Amino acid sequence: MITRTVRASDYPEVIAVINAWWGGRNMADMLPKLFFVHFQNTSFIVEEKGQILAFLIGFVSQTNTNEGYIHFVGVHPDHRKKGMAKCLYETFFGKIKPLGCNTVRCVTSPVNKNSIMFHTNLGFQVEQGDSEVEGISVHTNYDGKGESRVLFVKKV
Amino acid sequence: MITRTVRASDYPEVIAVINAWWGGRNMADMLPKLFFVHFQNTSFIVEEKGQILAFLIGFVSQTNTNEGYIHFVGVHPDHRKKGMAKCLYETFFGKIKPLGCNTVRCVTSPVNKNSIMFHTNLGFQVEQGDSEVEGISVHTNYDGKGESRVLFVKKV
Repeated sequence: MITRTVRASDYPEVIAVINAWWGGRNMADMLPKLFFVHFQNTSFIVEEKGQILAFLIGFVSQTNTNEGYIHFVGVHPDHRKKGMAKCLYETFFGKIKPLGCNTVRCVTSPVNKNSIMFHTNLGFQVEQGDSEVEGISVHTNYDGKGESRVLFVKKV
Repeated sequence: MITRTVRASDYPEVIAVINAWWGGRNMADMLPKLFFVHFQNTSFIVEEKGQILAFLIGFVSQTNTNEGYIHFVGVHPDHRKKGMAKCLYETFFGKIKPLGCNTVRCVTSPVNKNSIMFHTNLGFQVEQGDSEVEGISVHTNYDGKGESRVLFVKKV
């Protein structure tokens, strides 16, 4: 099993499975190929015997150059609870710190309880929003009408 | 009428109209708020009397740091054919050249004939793909299965 930076050629394999990995949610539109083309140095793949088991898509904010942003992380359903996502986050932190970053942000949906628990366990703080969903502070309509989000931030 | 860099606070106004500006196509999922948060220095708004008339979302590739990428450009339907999109592209070129860029890329759908004509008129070249749609070279399944795209490139 190896961890390496992404290549544009990884995209077809990932985009073909992404909705299934998210339990049938339509996620593909949120992951155009541009992320596999233009953010290769801060995006990573875990693979074994040529099969992609997990991936992380991240970049350095061009507005706030001391911030990294993690856009997407996915783990093959048969390979969860093995620490791959945590390992990918740590790989990302290790990559962006020498680039001058001391902060990482990410955004998730209030329905994604696994994601909320994962980020909390990893030491991310929830940024105070304007409403609450099941005890978690959310930013209402963050990604458009009806698209409320939980915002996470962590110092690295 | 002024042109300025985008702010995160522009997002609700843009995301509320984007599908209508694209003639009812569902475009909103492709424009999460992150683009208005993390790429402010290379993304622009045209506004008049506080109303957004046009916008461009672009960034510098972090893989190929000599390349700019334009992700999204929209013009209010009542304000088309006034040169706003061209002006926004030129603003983007002017911004990224001092950042070390000499190339600009963008991607569009084969169905978007206006976009293909616009980029061709602006001096973009179509990158050779693996198939053709109505005489235009396309990259089959570029953004996932069934999502073929026309790729443009221009030296600036």
